[in-house]
This record gives sequence, C-alpha cells and structure tokens, in this order.
Amino acid sequence: MTLPKSTSILHEVRTAENSAAYLLPKLQSMKDVNPKLTLLDVGAGSGTISVSFAKLIPDGHVTGVDLNPNILPRAQAAAETAGVKNIEFQQGSVYKLPFGDETFDITFCHQVLIHIGTPWDALREMLRVTKRGGIVAAREGDYETECVWPELPELSKFHRLMAGLMSAGGGDPKAGRQLLSWALKAGGEPSQITLSYSTSSYNTPTERKTCSQGLCVPLRGGSLRERALKFGLGTENDLEEMAKAWEEWAERDDASLAMLQGEILVQK
Amino acid sequence: MTLPKSTSILHEVRTAENSAAYLLPKLQSMKDVNPKLTLLDVGAGSGTISVSFAKLIPDGHVTGVDLNPNILPRAQAAAETAGVKNIEFQQGSVYKLPFGDETFDITFCHQVLIHIGTPWDALREMLRVTKRGGIVAAREGDYETECVWPELPELSKFHRLMAGLMSAGGGDPKAGRQLLSWALKAGGEPSQITLSYSTSSYNTPTERKTCSQGLCVPLRGGSLRERALKFGLGTENDLEEMAKAWEEWAERDDASLAMLQGEILVQK
Repeated sequence: MTLPKSTSILHEVRTAENSAAYLLPKLQSMKDVNPKLTLLDVGAGSGTISVSFAKLIPDGHVTGVDLNPNILPRAQAAAETAGVKNIEFQQGSVYKLPFGDETFDITFCHQVLIHIGTPWDALREMLRVTKRGGIVAAREGDYETECVWPELPELSKFHRLMAGLMSAGGGDPKAGRQLLSWALKAGGEPSQITLSYSTSSYNTPTERKTCSQGLCVPLRGGSLRERALKFGLGTENDLEEMAKAWEEWAERDDASLAMLQGEILVQK
Repeated sequence: MTLPKSTSILHEVRTAENSAAYLLPKLQSMKDVNPKLTLLDVGAGSGTISVSFAKLIPDGHVTGVDLNPNILPRAQAAAETAGVKNIEFQQGSVYKLPFGDETFDITFCHQVLIHIGTPWDALREMLRVTKRGGIVAAREGDYETECVWPELPELSKFHRLMAGLMSAGGGDPKAGRQLLSWALKAGGEPSQITLSYSTSSYNTPTERKTCSQGLCVPLRGGSLRERALKFGLGTENDLEEMAKAWEEWAERDDASLAMLQGEILVQK
C-alpha cells in the first residue's frame, strides 16, 4: 500500500482516550442506555481515533469520513490491524455529509474546524445528521496559544509557517477559543452546549522525540513542505533549518511544547 | 477585620482540588505511607488552598507562608471558618524560608514563581526545606497563552496591562513553559522532575460572572489599580473602560477565557 506522504506520525498516536476524554463520560452514559450507539467521526484521517471509538462501543458502529479519498486505505488498514469489525470508512465533506438527517447518536470531529473557512456550517451539518437526544462533539486546537521552550528562533518561524498555512487554507489558528461562538452560530442552544479546555503537550524525552520526528518528516517531504513552498511561506533552506531546530529541541532536557485545546459538547 | 483591598475574588475560589490536581495522586500515595505529612504552602495568600490541603491530611500539618503580613489574618480567618486546626500561617519570603533544611514532606507553591525575578532560586530554597524522598510542587500560569473570546479591544489592553505589571514587578508572563528549565537550574535531576500542563478557564455564565467581578474589583480599587497608575500602564479612564469590557464580556453567551498552566513535581 502506498501511504500518503502527508500522513503524520503525530496523527497516528491519537486515540479516543487522549483526544476525546471530554466526550467519554457522556459516551459511557449513552452506551449504558443503548449499547448499539452509532458514531460518526468527521475528518477521520488515518482512523486511529475512529478505531478506538469502535473498541469502546463493541455493540455499536463507527463511520469515519474524510474529504481525502487517499487516506481511506490507511484508515481501513488501522481497523484491520486492530481487528475491529464494527467500522467503515468513506469519502465525504463535512459541509455535505453523505447521510440522512438524524442518523447518528454521536457526531464527532477532531482538528477539522481549525482548517476550514466556515466552521459553523460544518457544525450545523454535523447537527443535521445527529439524532435528537444525540451529541455533537468537537475538539480543536488554539494554535495561537502554542508555547514552546526553549524559544529557538527557527521554532518561532515554524509557528508562523503553520499559522500561515492554516490561514492560507481558509482556516483560523484561533479555533479553540471560538468553538462556543461557532456552535451558537450553527444553531446550538446556549444551555445545551458544554465548553471545556484541555491541553496537548510533549514533555518527556520520548514525547519530544515523537513530536520532533512528527514535524521533521513533513518538513522534509510531503504536503506540508509542498504547501509551504507553494504559498511562499518558506524556502527549502528555511524548512531544513526548522527541521534541524526540532531535532535540537528534542534533545534538550528543558524542552516542552504545549497548546490549549477547546472542546464542545452540543446536545441536540 | 480590615481586608486587604488587593485580595481578589479569583484567589479565594482556589482549592487543592482545582489548583493542585497534578499533586493529589502523589500526596495520596505519600499519605498512605505516612498520614502525618507536613506540607508547606509558599505564597499562601488568602489561604484557601492551604486550608483544603489541611483537610486532605487531617493527621498531618500545613504551614502557609506569605511575604505580605497583611494577608495573614485573612488566611487565619479562612482556617477558622473551615474549622481546620492542623494549620498555621506566618510571614516569610520564598527566597529565605524561615525553616531548617529537610523540614517538610511536600513544599508547594501556586502562582508565585511567575511574579518573581529569579524563580530558580525560589525552587532551590523550596528544595532545601524539603525532606529527602519528599516533593516540591509548583503550578504557574503561562500568561502569554491567555486567550479570551470575544476579542474586545479593551480586553487586549487589559492583557497587556497585566503582562506589563508582571514584568514591572520582575516576573515573567511566560512562566508556565519555563517551569522545567527553572527546576533544572535549581538543581533538580531531569529524571526526578515530572512536567505536565493543565488549563484554567471560565466557560459558564456563573464562571464568567466570577471572573468579571474578580477583575473589575481590583481595576476599580486596590493594588492592581494603584500599580497600573504608578507604572504608567494605564489611565484611570483606561482602567474603567477595561472594567466595563469585562462586564460586557461576562454577559455574552459566546464568551470564554482560558490559559495554560505549567506544573512540576520535583522528587528530592
């Protein structure tokens, strides 16, 4: 199987446990009432979160959709490797989900709304395919809160590059803090929305190495590199200097990286 | 009793549970071995965290110190109100703690290192008074990661005012991300330091109201106002506009405020 070059190591360590903890108590209480829950993972990517959801609801069913059809074989392979059967993946856009009204008990996305131009339309569409009494859940980084230590100059350049790429693609690096406002704009009732914040971080030597590798690979080849060059957000030399800085960062005892994550649960 | 005007509503909602969750599993495991734990809370302020620690170790003892002797009666009153006896408060500087070497099982501080010039010296002093096998614990905001929505212009001015006040006092608004580097500089062994990040946030109507009141009171009177005017970081009119903006913010359905918090446990 040819793997998409843009697939990041950082995406594939994601699970429901580390990326959707805010949803799990609600998922558990819904499962207690109805073990046959149906869950839609929008922007499922390489499928690791979808697969972990499928394990959590063995009598239920998970559907993963992604705009990029090239990632689907990777997600299917993740399910096969995990021996998970109650799952399927298909191509689809968050703006026009290929499902009827009120299809799923839980409609979920993770790091999707930060990349798109009208995230409230996406949330409205996610609400549409969700059953009454169901839940829409979203977790999005607030990239402007990313803090890295030590403050190597090339890492600051990398931050600006990533924010520039998000903006160039129509997204908004300040997604996390706006989730509540987007959910309201999508038609959510204030009293039915629960907002929380959590963090993602890389603090230990092993975590730093994972983070560094996960950033160096796409800086040295793949869609991140291609887009950075295309949009004039960095030269080949700049990108190599950034990759070297991440390698240096990973070796330092005093290094860490952290970011705020916004999270909403919208009860339909 | 005359209360210090600078005392903030926001400080008095702090407890061990909401401000030291990262420490509690370790505290519990130490208490299982030795119920008579001694804990030092450095920069105890109005004492609400100290009091909640004292409740958690009823057979142990908590000592709270603060540089400001005027806050001590308020801390003592908090202990009396809670009916907590295993606690005492006294004046003291984090740079020269009035205790012998290896006195406490746990030495803790919260939102102290962000305000001082050489936080690694403070951590070294905290390590000094901690027993071998004990723990130094610190949690500090990373004020540069504070994110507020909606982005009212006066709230951006308030952010700059607060960062300016921290810097004017010798502190560093980027404290959270530097905790690990400070602990290393204080002599901590890399393998003995656990770094984590959490968040503080105000997301619900009630939380927003608490936050707004907690900021409006010191903006309209008290040491924050006095210092802002003294350092030329705002006019009386500016401060009133900021207070009004916080009141407006608190009333908005789409409003929230969040910040990253760095946390370290240093095993001695």
